[in-house]
Amino acid sequence: MDLIEKKLYREEKYKGVIVDVYIDKVELCDGKTARREVVNHPGGVTILPLDDAGYCYLVRQYRYPVGKALLETPAGKLEYGEEHMACAVRELSEETGFSADEFIDLGCFYTSPGFSTEIIHVYLACGLHAGDMHLDEGEFLNVEKYRFEELIDMVMRGEIDDAKTVIAILKAESYLRAKDRNGAEA
Amino acid sequence: MDLIEKKLYREEKYKGVIVDVYIDKVELCDGKTARREVVNHPGGVTILPLDDAGYCYLVRQYRYPVGKALLETPAGKLEYGEEHMACAVRELSEETGFSADEFIDLGCFYTSPGFSTEIIHVYLACGLHAGDMHLDEGEFLNVEKYRFEELIDMVMRGEIDDAKTVIAILKAESYLRAKDRNGAEA
Repeated sequence: MDLIEKKLYREEKYKGVIVDVYIDKVELCDGKTARREVVNHPGGVTILPLDDAGYCYLVRQYRYPVGKALLETPAGKLEYGEEHMACAVRELSEETGFSADEFIDLGCFYTSPGFSTEIIHVYLACGLHAGDMHLDEGEFLNVEKYRFEELIDMVMRGEIDDAKTVIAILKAESYLRAKDRNGAEA
Repeated sequence: MDLIEKKLYREEKYKGVIVDVYIDKVELCDGKTARREVVNHPGGVTILPLDDAGYCYLVRQYRYPVGKALLETPAGKLEYGEEHMACAVRELSEETGFSADEFIDLGCFYTSPGFSTEIIHVYLACGLHAGDMHLDEGEFLNVEKYRFEELIDMVMRGEIDDAKTVIAILKAESYLRAKDRNGAEA
């Protein structure tokens, strides 16, 4: 069966600051119609900064929707027309002060494709240089330093439970393991 | 600094099918106030079904908000008052027909805690028994079978890009690797 749903018309239900909400009437693959609730989000980037000594820098910030402070990879929303890489450079600097010699692309993912358009691009940043943080108005966070191996254990113990952070750490682990293996074979 | 934001009042902006949207006025940690946009979601579960021969069963379905068919672990939203485990048993059966002898808890994660309350509980299902699928009205999906190792490569190549599916596969890999290691040492 051809898996596709065609938009017939769209009704705007809410126009907000971060998100907009639409109800679309769609045609299903069996020709019937249905309604789909869509939360539009600009998308963003996240960066796992790893220094030459094997330490990572994460940010702890209060996440109001879930009612607690989470430990996360530095991240931010794309500004209108902004390139992913430029956004990664900007957000890493704003939230941690670091610049990086290299941003390794670890791909992108959809946070919740059943209702949201949000897509996040993931980078591993290496060759770090310290600088000054410059947070947005009303943005409060603490930078915390961990060994990379420790982060993997924290993910598996459930102490890190933010999707982008879990994905950045586990993809970086897989990437670095493959790189080590190739290095050993070369 | 104590990272907390206190709710002062809440305004309902949209009451929908899957999500509701609120704008809350909050007090920040510096005593100033700000507005927080919150998308309320019931949360859900996802299940990675792995058979005794090392094959996994994923579902491919059209995801209207992102405009394409994604390969995902079977999943579903929590019904009102439903236990996570009961939801996992129900969704695995509905979408793939399988029942399982064992559901291994791989923890939970927030999909996008900057604006959404959604939390997803992740299970690895082992000891599979085939049965009949029974999809919801208007739900169309294809079940696809892959070797577990192949799924890890697909994640790293970006062919699997749904958050819950990436997390279920990479956490399962880490879990199974630790189990193998412990088995080899015992």
